[in-house]
Amino acid sequence: MPHDLLDSIALLGRTPAALNVLLRDLPKSWTFRNEGENSWTVFDVIGHLNHGERTDWLPRARIILEHGETKPFERFDRFAQKRESQGKTLGQLLDEFAQLRSENLEELRRLNLQSKDLERRGKHPVLGVVTLSELLATWAAHDLTHLHQISRIMAYQYREAVGPWTKFLGVMHCGGHSAP
Amino acid sequence: MPHDLLDSIALLGRTPAALNVLLRDLPKSWTFRNEGENSWTVFDVIGHLNHGERTDWLPRARIILEHGETKPFERFDRFAQKRESQGKTLGQLLDEFAQLRSENLEELRRLNLQSKDLERRGKHPVLGVVTLSELLATWAAHDLTHLHQISRIMAYQYREAVGPWTKFLGVMHCGGHSAP
Repeated sequence: MPHDLLDSIALLGRTPAALNVLLRDLPKSWTFRNEGENSWTVFDVIGHLNHGERTDWLPRARIILEHGETKPFERFDRFAQKRESQGKTLGQLLDEFAQLRSENLEELRRLNLQSKDLERRGKHPVLGVVTLSELLATWAAHDLTHLHQISRIMAYQYREAVGPWTKFLGVMHCGGHSAP
Repeated sequence: MPHDLLDSIALLGRTPAALNVLLRDLPKSWTFRNEGENSWTVFDVIGHLNHGERTDWLPRARIILEHGETKPFERFDRFAQKRESQGKTLGQLLDEFAQLRSENLEELRRLNLQSKDLERRGKHPVLGVVTLSELLATWAAHDLTHLHQISRIMAYQYREAVGPWTKFLGVMHCGGHSAP
């Protein structure tokens, strides 16, 4: 399936509201517990999504459009949310996510990207040459990887409660496929 | 974490609305494509959730309360949705899910289950003896296993679009951990 920017935007526009409906006011036993040492809570994941909205996707798209391959992206800080989320509630983080995403999608629409723009190339500090199309598709897929992670973190809290059914529940056997 | 029925109900009550916000009117390239031969689309998953609401969770709870271990549960038909979803739209299936779940949670509340009820035992045709508590926890965890699957099915559609970023996206490396 080739990348269709409108498909990406359709998903990116829905994720904050879907997470809001799923998570807001949910008992903290679901959202403030992790999967063991050095793993993330659902609260941590939403903070990470917010940091991406602030520093990753649109800023990198701008670097590609303004500098091409001559200026590598800044490295992404995967632990920034520990600092940025301090003292906030999950409700506040969900509000921030909705607000930041909405502003970023508005800016993306203003860029009015055409096919030839999507082929433009930039430089990732680790992955090397990437295209604007790949960056924007990854923005959408990054939502999905964290939805995948959130469902797994939550299911982990019920690993004993489900008793023998754990055998039939795929998510209970997912140890994650990368660092969070 | 011991099973807290109120935690399960809190999650069970949110899943239909969260899936509705995520999936309704999303381009079909996300919701009507699968992960290859004999795998499910997002549309198939919602049909499966509806079949569970009709035939699995509350009917099995009733069997435990009325017959204990003397009457094993009916086997669950994991392919019923192929038949039941025929001719329906994804929007219709999402509406059905919201309606069925709401009715089932209302019935669950009417049962007014106490701790001693949750310890009651029933007989699963494959797993053997299970408790009512385990059944109800599994109802909630089953939502999570399918949220996990939905995020994976959708991400699969972008496995090429993300280019080299596939390396950093855990969901792209999830092959599933059980039959769907």
